[in-house]
Amino acid sequence: MFKEKFKEGIITAKDFTRDDIDYILNRAQEMIRNDINSQLLSNKILATLFFEPSTRTRLSFESSMHRLGGSVIGFHKGDVSSTTKGESLADTIRTVENYSDGIVIRHNLEGAAKLAAKFSRIPIINAGSGSGEHPTQALLDLLTITQEGQKLDGMNIGIMGDLKYGRTVHSLTILLSNYDANIYLISPNELMLRNRDKDFLQKRQVKYKEITQYRKILDVLDVLYMTRIQKERIPDVEEYDKVKSFYVFRKDDLNNTKDNFKLMHPLPRITEISPEVDSSPKAIYFKQTYYGIPMRKAILAELLSD
Amino acid sequence: MFKEKFKEGIITAKDFTRDDIDYILNRAQEMIRNDINSQLLSNKILATLFFEPSTRTRLSFESSMHRLGGSVIGFHKGDVSSTTKGESLADTIRTVENYSDGIVIRHNLEGAAKLAAKFSRIPIINAGSGSGEHPTQALLDLLTITQEGQKLDGMNIGIMGDLKYGRTVHSLTILLSNYDANIYLISPNELMLRNRDKDFLQKRQVKYKEITQYRKILDVLDVLYMTRIQKERIPDVEEYDKVKSFYVFRKDDLNNTKDNFKLMHPLPRITEISPEVDSSPKAIYFKQTYYGIPMRKAILAELLSD
Amino acid sequence: MFKEKFKEGIITAKDFTRDDIDYILNRAQEMIRNDINSQLLSNKILATLFFEPSTRTRLSFESSMHRLGGSVIGFHKGDVSSTTKGESLADTIRTVENYSDGIVIRHNLEGAAKLAAKFSRIPIINAGSGSGEHPTQALLDLLTITQEGQKLDGMNIGIMGDLKYGRTVHSLTILLSNYDANIYLISPNELMLRNRDKDFLQKRQVKYKEITQYRKILDVLDVLYMTRIQKERIPDVEEYDKVKSFYVFRKDDLNNTKDNFKLMHPLPRITEISPEVDSSPKAIYFKQTYYGIPMRKAILAELLSD
Repeated sequence: MFKEKFKEGIITAKDFTRDDIDYILNRAQEMIRNDINSQLLSNKILATLFFEPSTRTRLSFESSMHRLGGSVIGFHKGDVSSTTKGESLADTIRTVENYSDGIVIRHNLEGAAKLAAKFSRIPIINAGSGSGEHPTQALLDLLTITQEGQKLDGMNIGIMGDLKYGRTVHSLTILLSNYDANIYLISPNELMLRNRDKDFLQKRQVKYKEITQYRKILDVLDVLYMTRIQKERIPDVEEYDKVKSFYVFRKDDLNNTKDNFKLMHPLPRITEISPEVDSSPKAIYFKQTYYGIPMRKAILAELLSD
Repeated sequence: MFKEKFKEGIITAKDFTRDDIDYILNRAQEMIRNDINSQLLSNKILATLFFEPSTRTRLSFESSMHRLGGSVIGFHKGDVSSTTKGESLADTIRTVENYSDGIVIRHNLEGAAKLAAKFSRIPIINAGSGSGEHPTQALLDLLTITQEGQKLDGMNIGIMGDLKYGRTVHSLTILLSNYDANIYLISPNELMLRNRDKDFLQKRQVKYKEITQYRKILDVLDVLYMTRIQKERIPDVEEYDKVKSFYVFRKDDLNNTKDNFKLMHPLPRITEISPEVDSSPKAIYFKQTYYGIPMRKAILAELLSD
Repeated sequence: MFKEKFKEGIITAKDFTRDDIDYILNRAQEMIRNDINSQLLSNKILATLFFEPSTRTRLSFESSMHRLGGSVIGFHKGDVSSTTKGESLADTIRTVENYSDGIVIRHNLEGAAKLAAKFSRIPIINAGSGSGEHPTQALLDLLTITQEGQKLDGMNIGIMGDLKYGRTVHSLTILLSNYDANIYLISPNELMLRNRDKDFLQKRQVKYKEITQYRKILDVLDVLYMTRIQKERIPDVEEYDKVKSFYVFRKDDLNNTKDNFKLMHPLPRITEISPEVDSSPKAIYFKQTYYGIPMRKAILAELLSD
């Protein structure tokens, strides 16, 4: 059972089988159909610990918690919290677990969520750990894809941008390895998926192809999932300047896409999608933010309800 | 109807007719008379997006929302939010509208609230946009004036301090243009009301007079509305130093005022009102903060209730 | 009656008689026995004003308030609040008292909470004022001691670390002056309890002894209460470097302690307790964070309920 299996929380997309994904997609779809605020978590407190900046993910979790009647405590970077006094993450977790019923954590280090789970008696939800993973974003991406008329099996999906540092991309490819999708990994040479990530896809016999230009395959794609270049994780400013404008998706590009083509982006976007694209029904990146609520409501309801 | 007219939110004081003002003043007075916490907005979420620092306005809105049973999400400067990743305001709004039922925004740029409203399906409330406007402050100021025994029609009001950059002043003069008030605009030459703002007053045939010294007209005033010099908006430090102590209202000044005279200030004050004035019943600037709650409860109730 | 006596808030441990302490300990124990969320404060708002960084204390108060059904507003350093515009603490308090039903304040200046109480009509809770006091921490410490099998009367307690700047220590020794405890004050010479604090203990005829080494008396202690060196309050970096690793409690030390010995720490800890100690049942510093909730629920229930 989902609740039992994930009682320590949601740390990595690797823990998800196809059944697990189907289950939580169903729960999220229920949340959409039955879109009323509930009091399911009215006696629960969620802690949101954001050691890295975030608008979207933090507010999405906090809104979802409120929609379920729950309360929120937490801190987010910019706040100068106790960690400035030199406290370890383990100590912070062993403190906050006494104040709340679940912890959402974003951290600049890759192993942070896993470490937190090791020290916590309450569920930990990984909301982004360095350039590692961001599993709940990938879950809401799958919800978006299925709700917006695409099928995960058989789909041709391009995943484009910063495949090296983009944690969203990592969780998404891992989740997709449970389905029979054709994946085009599109990136500048400097920002290709790392070997360890490709090894994982190969072991799971995922059909993927690495290319640097998207225009030549645009007409075969059902979904193009774009990502921002992760400026804050690229060690060298010059390296960033070289790749920052490598891709700019323009309105003209839409002409070469299938009728049912969908353009996605986890946001924030910088310059990689031209604003003139926003008004197209094929552009569904703002809908993605909408789907974040039912997915996170489903996750919180599963993990925190009695 | 107010709710219908302002369904996109409260962006500028210019949208308010005398009827609109009377209506919302009445609603706020109901909130005062019937000062119990309600559950009117118990299934609603307010987002407070403060791109500029604020204590008063943000906490006032958040308290008002809680007093109506609602929840709050948001960020405020000092928080390093996603906007540090270079996201546009339009994208932020199109995200947060999926997480909440109304957005309160403060921003350093003048057109920010208007732009936000353009992109939002949910109501936007302008909580201060650069040196432009701050309409809900002006509404609570009118509530304060009427509750504290003054009449808007026929009133002699001095508005003093930074009339160039003070957004509160701009919204207040605009609202007052609906009434038959005599306005004394009192400021150093460097900080006079800008021409565009004076043009508006002239078009509306407002009776105003510009002067630099308040003492000579103190005895005719029913209300003196003081403001802080907007240090953060004055480009030149030397210019600020020149005007920062231009006005200091002292206890002695009270001797030259009418019995029913009221001294107001949107706060924070720096040195422009001497603390010895605080204890006078003529000083009602802390009462202003009190009136912020019923006014904002009225506004939130109108805009967010089903 | 407690509620009546502390209607202005909790400012200093000096206000507490033995009866007051017993009363609030009892209330906290009720909260533990009857550990369900209530709606006791469902129509109340708590303001948390943190002018200094905090994770533990702020989240502990906020969690406690939510567990009682209440709402929270506030700011915390890192936030650039209105105080950057130069507002006085008195003005901030006279504003926030109009937005809330109680104020928790942490401030870098010693007299801040007392000053706040002077200007406030609603209860003020001192959550740490400079190197002065932190009374609610000391109350939860006493709760921890009694709940974990020690007796306040007759207890041998070592209080060790930064006795000069550690506000927690100050409130703890003051509370203990109501009991017949033997206190060992253990610190480097540079960080001994200040004379004014020792004068207080002498006046109350507290049995205390000042030493610099803990190992020689470890076997007689029932409780050792360690504290972090308050880096941010030591004026000179070199002075800090000299004392920062003066004490490191190691696993071996446990061998020389009584069976019922308890090691406490208000947290955060830096290096003064080795992590290998954490797993010992004698180490109860994470339990202290747990006891923070029932104690603060008790305090909030007393001060804010109708």
